[in-house]
Amino acid sequence: MPELPAGGLITRNLFLSCDPYMRGRMGTEKNYTGGFPLDQPIPSRVVAQVWQSDNERFQIGDFVWGFLNWERYTGVATPNQLRKIDPELGPLSHAISVLGMPGLTAEVGMQELGMPKPGDTVFVSAASGAVGSIAGQLAKLAGARVIGSAGSDQKVTHLLDKLGFDGAFNYKTANVGEALDEYCPAGIDVYFDNVGGATLDAALARINPFARIPVCGQISGYDGGGSGIKRIGALVASRATMTGFVIYDHMHKFDAFLPRMAQHMSRGDVRYFEDIVDGIEATPQAFIGMMQGDNIGKRLVKIADPE
Amino acid sequence: MPELPAGGLITRNLFLSCDPYMRGRMGTEKNYTGGFPLDQPIPSRVVAQVWQSDNERFQIGDFVWGFLNWERYTGVATPNQLRKIDPELGPLSHAISVLGMPGLTAEVGMQELGMPKPGDTVFVSAASGAVGSIAGQLAKLAGARVIGSAGSDQKVTHLLDKLGFDGAFNYKTANVGEALDEYCPAGIDVYFDNVGGATLDAALARINPFARIPVCGQISGYDGGGSGIKRIGALVASRATMTGFVIYDHMHKFDAFLPRMAQHMSRGDVRYFEDIVDGIEATPQAFIGMMQGDNIGKRLVKIADPE
Repeated sequence: MPELPAGGLITRNLFLSCDPYMRGRMGTEKNYTGGFPLDQPIPSRVVAQVWQSDNERFQIGDFVWGFLNWERYTGVATPNQLRKIDPELGPLSHAISVLGMPGLTAEVGMQELGMPKPGDTVFVSAASGAVGSIAGQLAKLAGARVIGSAGSDQKVTHLLDKLGFDGAFNYKTANVGEALDEYCPAGIDVYFDNVGGATLDAALARINPFARIPVCGQISGYDGGGSGIKRIGALVASRATMTGFVIYDHMHKFDAFLPRMAQHMSRGDVRYFEDIVDGIEATPQAFIGMMQGDNIGKRLVKIADPE
Repeated sequence: MPELPAGGLITRNLFLSCDPYMRGRMGTEKNYTGGFPLDQPIPSRVVAQVWQSDNERFQIGDFVWGFLNWERYTGVATPNQLRKIDPELGPLSHAISVLGMPGLTAEVGMQELGMPKPGDTVFVSAASGAVGSIAGQLAKLAGARVIGSAGSDQKVTHLLDKLGFDGAFNYKTANVGEALDEYCPAGIDVYFDNVGGATLDAALARINPFARIPVCGQISGYDGGGSGIKRIGALVASRATMTGFVIYDHMHKFDAFLPRMAQHMSRGDVRYFEDIVDGIEATPQAFIGMMQGDNIGKRLVKIADPE
């Protein structure tokens, strides 16, 4: 149990987040955030309840989310980065999933960079995941035809039956190029890239003129795997744009995003699924399993019930 | 000698262009233009003089440029795509080099997509070539530090002594990554990519946040060579944008571009060098040599003198 910092608070942590970008911090490669410090708890987004407070903005029992750690209790010296959760908006865990950074990531990537129009064909990889599942549904709302790839037949069924995708395939058993030819016969106008690697190459080979490729992640390369991309020349041939983005640059949009996404959820225009593992001891395996693709929807670890 | 088409004209061709993009049309790969038809003269940009005319817009003796063929005389049934050359603006050959498509390509790519600012570090590959040499000088005019790569020590000297680059290296003898570390110690804000391949990978590994990568060409891959690009993940880490472009989409900007670039030339703000081979029989080898990098500046073939 940490000491209560002067002017700060102690949080009792309830839900821990497992996100692919965290893999990038488990190494020394240049990234948009630094590597995790050794011999320290792993920072991640966390849903928590205020346990002790020496800060007048926070009362004991308040629900908050922000960058805390994979641990039971966190002492927060300067809590100004923590945000309060309005429990009326949905389950508490949504604050670090659909109503949090994954939701904002999907919105910024799809709406601002992907810019789907009615009639466009939109392809989303890792489409059943925390971000891809929202990105695909937002493209549907924009009037596009949406195709998703995922890593199991169960996920493919989930995309078609639960999330309303127009087509979906299992990239582990299908030939990705042939599947894209089948499901995107008119080519690809937007490719929301979560994975990089061979899937990106196959998509590049099929982009339409003036295609947009928001690059959200490159999970296929995070563990050192992933072949080189051979079809960059398609960017020229198709006058296409690939843009990497990092959600930290867009935090000022959060307050406007939150009611918008909450309304999508309450209307049923966006459906969201979480894959919640129980118990802090299970956290490392929950993370590794997420990297291996065994989750359907956002991977979280629940480590305590609210008081 | 072709027949004079009704309403058309016959051109006597003076300068033929050799451009890297033409390699893409010598195959069946999807491209922004179709493959060259077999057993026909090769179309390219040409400077010509009107030899016979049945069109009131064109008088015998007018200088024109446009898409004609690698041949001595071309019959043009619908000459509306031909543009007249104002010989006051410079040597006739400039109409298919600095005052033509290569110049407009450099301007659109560097100014609209690269957007160099004072203090930026700008890296240009194939920097002594038809487009790269202009792109680099435009970045200098915008106040950036400009580094170029080229394929011989002679070209490197040319970049430093004739074109005013702040640094330059021979990618065939240097380690590209180490050279970029040396010449771009503050990282790369704009990479004007003419070559793709290993140079693109080395640049990606060194881009700064919000870097811009206009993709003009990928010459390293045109002959089927070129390894895959492994550092696409840098786009995410650096929130960078890569945009392919094709100058045909920007032809409506030509009339505004021409006096602007002519003024740069007359003031000496942009210097331009042409590498002119003599005689139509030399054209195939002139093209192959250009693909192998034996030209300094824009490769043209002069096949006749003006009357």
